Amino acid sequence: MNLKNDLILRAARGESVERYPVWLMRQAGRILPEYRAVRNSLSGFKELVETPQLAAEVTIQPVDILDVDAAIIFSDILVVPEAMGLEYQMIEKKGPWFEKTVCTREQLSTIQTDFDIEDRLGYVTEAIKITNKELDGRVPLIGFAGAPWTIFCYMTEGQGSKTFSVSRKILYTDPTLAHELLQSITDVTIKYLKAQIAAGAHMVQVFDSWAGILGKDQYQEFGIKYLKQIADAINEVPVTLFSKGAFSSLKEIGELSCNTVGLDWNMNIEQARALVGETRTLQGNLDPCALYSSHKELERLTNNMMESFVSQRHIVNLGHGVYPDIDPEKVKTFIKTVKSYAIKH
Amino acid sequence: MNLKNDLILRAARGESVERYPVWLMRQAGRILPEYRAVRNSLSGFKELVETPQLAAEVTIQPVDILDVDAAIIFSDILVVPEAMGLEYQMIEKKGPWFEKTVCTREQLSTIQTDFDIEDRLGYVTEAIKITNKELDGRVPLIGFAGAPWTIFCYMTEGQGSKTFSVSRKILYTDPTLAHELLQSITDVTIKYLKAQIAAGAHMVQVFDSWAGILGKDQYQEFGIKYLKQIADAINEVPVTLFSKGAFSSLKEIGELSCNTVGLDWNMNIEQARALVGETRTLQGNLDPCALYSSHKELERLTNNMMESFVSQRHIVNLGHGVYPDIDPEKVKTFIKTVKSYAIKH
Repeated sequence: MNLKNDLILRAARGESVERYPVWLMRQAGRILPEYRAVRNSLSGFKELVETPQLAAEVTIQPVDILDVDAAIIFSDILVVPEAMGLEYQMIEKKGPWFEKTVCTREQLSTIQTDFDIEDRLGYVTEAIKITNKELDGRVPLIGFAGAPWTIFCYMTEGQGSKTFSVSRKILYTDPTLAHELLQSITDVTIKYLKAQIAAGAHMVQVFDSWAGILGKDQYQEFGIKYLKQIADAINEVPVTLFSKGAFSSLKEIGELSCNTVGLDWNMNIEQARALVGETRTLQGNLDPCALYSSHKELERLTNNMMESFVSQRHIVNLGHGVYPDIDPEKVKTFIKTVKSYAIKH
Repeated sequence: MNLKNDLILRAARGESVERYPVWLMRQAGRILPEYRAVRNSLSGFKELVETPQLAAEVTIQPVDILDVDAAIIFSDILVVPEAMGLEYQMIEKKGPWFEKTVCTREQLSTIQTDFDIEDRLGYVTEAIKITNKELDGRVPLIGFAGAPWTIFCYMTEGQGSKTFSVSRKILYTDPTLAHELLQSITDVTIKYLKAQIAAGAHMVQVFDSWAGILGKDQYQEFGIKYLKQIADAINEVPVTLFSKGAFSSLKEIGELSCNTVGLDWNMNIEQARALVGETRTLQGNLDPCALYSSHKELERLTNNMMESFVSQRHIVNLGHGVYPDIDPEKVKTFIKTVKSYAIKH
């Protein structure tokens, strides 16, 4: 199928673009009343994730309503640990919760990696197929997965945490177990991303939400090592790596075989460009709180961010997922401002 | 009173030391069974904070048991917002909770700044006096307060948060209100630290626990601006500034009128030294999770950290508070390793 708007793919590959492409992390979600209407008709978040027709519907909503340059499949990074044998619940206002965790060799032995992706995660690939059919080439569709380190955090801690000290403890007490689990997650993640691509994902993003809780050396050993395997394995479509909080490893991330490096809102674009160089596209990074500003101030802040781009190789986004109480009209202002910005050649 | 061990004060001032001084953030607390015995005899955490004789007792425990080179007064950074009119509760396993918050001008108008420190926070200065009397000069006593930005976070959000998006929203929607509240907190904090010093604190530390959630420009405007006022105002004793997660502002923090800059465990000591220069002492920064290692591995990790010190101007600590489930014997190994390390002259 020919894409009518392939701006984000060209930007990812470093090809010429007429203007910067823009999308928002968590664009399909609670900011849209249309999403909440679908969500409230269901028993819970997971029913939405696991029902391809509905997942496709909410994936497309921001394309229709917000006019973004890409869709991202509505799903959750935790479908991977669940497929590996750790069922999760999404508890309202609390976040994810796993009854079983992996902190011992015995628990590790119960983890499954040798399963068929279509068999356990077919609802995601099916949602991708439906989405592309309904999008009819209007914009590219982004697939995604959690980075091995971040998935490791949830599989060991069993829930969110400020310090993830249970997860980090294992890096000291049993680094061999940590590496074995990380390798299992990596193997499944590569298969999973390839299945998403086979189903029609035009690019993929790997989210390392908890990169920032490790020091540089440990992130190299337990984080980047496995990101590298993923980046090396995925050659079919452009790859974006987003390691939140890992400013001190940005250079090393940019050296991986990826197309785009995601920046959180605390990362300075000029400094990031100096570290990553000109051979990678940068994605980001307006502070999601900037969308609480007035429309006029938001335009100013967005234009300020655009001014700090010194290269064509950018995909505009927030520096984190859009917060659920943001007015969709503000998101529209953000997107319009990006779209009307003239690239300086 | 003459101090028998003034190593940490000399290290803070950049004077010659025979060995590096060592203490641990949260050394008075749940890691010690002796602390838990006191704590469990009371109705709650706040009773301990507000009972000078008991606060002094748990302050001295780590000096007796762990042989640290400094005591830090047992208290909480949230006593300041409480004195300003926002009562807090410390909810077991959940953390602090404020019934009232400050998000509007009307709420701001209820905030009190013009009160007598001894009147509302006399239990802290009294605890300092008792502690010093009972310590009898064995080691210096550290006083502390939260940084204005971190206190602002709690006063606006009303509880802990992963994103503090309520707090950060105000920086965009009403920066004037934000600055007024930050100035009020700063004024009280300076008075409070001076009262602690008058009562006998030999040095003070300012904790900016949520520095890392702001980008560099916003941290300059809403964080460092007020840290500067505090650092400029406190000349009586050495001042330590610990801005967790603010690696990209380390240079600017080091330019403030402080003696010591705290490093979290993600900050590289060599890089930090290059940014801060030789005119400040660095404090930190072993990963608190390193204390989950075997004694032998912990010795190796501690020595590795010591090796990366390229200057005498260091105070050894963890890069974050010690985690409550750490074996006190591991803390002793950490401290002994530091004490037996020979400084390379």
